[in-house]
Amino acid sequence: MSFSPLIRQLIDALRILPGVGQKSAQRMALQMLERDRSGGLRLAQALSRAMEGVGYCRQCRTLSEDEICPQCADPRRDDSLLCVVQSPMDVFAVEQTGFRGRYFVLKGHLSPLDGLGPEAIGIPELLERVANATFAEVILATNPTVEGEATAHYIAQMLAPKGLAVSRIAHGVPLGGELDLVDGGTLAHALAGRKPISV
Amino acid sequence: MSFSPLIRQLIDALRILPGVGQKSAQRMALQMLERDRSGGLRLAQALSRAMEGVGYCRQCRTLSEDEICPQCADPRRDDSLLCVVQSPMDVFAVEQTGFRGRYFVLKGHLSPLDGLGPEAIGIPELLERVANATFAEVILATNPTVEGEATAHYIAQMLAPKGLAVSRIAHGVPLGGELDLVDGGTLAHALAGRKPISV
Ligand SMILES: [Zn+2]
Ligand SMILES: [Zn+2]
Repeated sequence: MSFSPLIRQLIDALRILPGVGQKSAQRMALQMLERDRSGGLRLAQALSRAMEGVGYCRQCRTLSEDEICPQCADPRRDDSLLCVVQSPMDVFAVEQTGFRGRYFVLKGHLSPLDGLGPEAIGIPELLERVANATFAEVILATNPTVEGEATAHYIAQMLAPKGLAVSRIAHGVPLGGELDLVDGGTLAHALAGRKPISV
Repeated sequence: MSFSPLIRQLIDALRILPGVGQKSAQRMALQMLERDRSGGLRLAQALSRAMEGVGYCRQCRTLSEDEICPQCADPRRDDSLLCVVQSPMDVFAVEQTGFRGRYFVLKGHLSPLDGLGPEAIGIPELLERVANATFAEVILATNPTVEGEATAHYIAQMLAPKGLAVSRIAHGVPLGGELDLVDGGTLAHALAGRKPISV
């Protein structure tokens, strides 16, 4: 089917959204045009304002148009805990768990082959953040991938002389799954990290 | 989790998209901001251009910013067949079947209780369209609902004196389903509309 140029361009542009394929993009475009043009215009405005206005929090480096993001500005949070993640999406994931300490957001993971060393991902800023605060513990919540592990290991080494607890999120079998669907590496970690059951 | 105002407004605005809930909207907003701001700006522009520029085809009344839409302008289509649907989304659905005749798009279905009579949904324009062309057959592809049936029935009556074939899309069991999951009304239609099997 051929759409008129403006509709075709809208469908193409909608496909940049994660999880939106050709069919969903067509349905979205036609439904907005038929049923909610003012909603479509509000979305256009929200998009251009956010894309142009949102920067990074000066303290935790997550996405925010304010110099200090809501998490950093909130006085009720636990100032003794710092959670280090690889991306702003991970802040969101950790928030879901109920964690209410502070955050530091790296720009991805160390990747020497791509020329991404400690400076490129913001490790000097992390060390500065730790030096300027009074954290009792730094939780390294980088991804459970080879690169995420290496990044966590590097940071742990850098923090070792600072006299604070440095921890890594636990590896193990995910809740609610079936054991035979868990990959071997994860299961090996889960076995090695077994804990006594208190009854 | 609290997002800064621009991010929160973007998440809220994304929720007008069909099929996008709170979690998907958050993922979409953060990923665009992290990975594809120029794509986000292109989407903003495509949205405002389409919401402000797209009108309706003068001939078939589907969504189009051109006076005559690509389907109506295409000289290779079958001028003897007119398919009548309830919405531009339905044009898309019928195109998927390989139909390559012409279309007429009603504005929904007759709904006397809501004050939506023949004029409100564009039936005079449909009759004019039929009068000004040389269709051999008009296929009524309104929805298989009580209102869609009533609308098809009304149009069939109006077209009866015009000396052309008027047909209704067939009712029956959908392909690929299981018979015990088909609702009773559909199954009754499928039985009543049974056809001899040629072997
Ligand atoms: Zn912050
Ligand atoms: Zn048209």
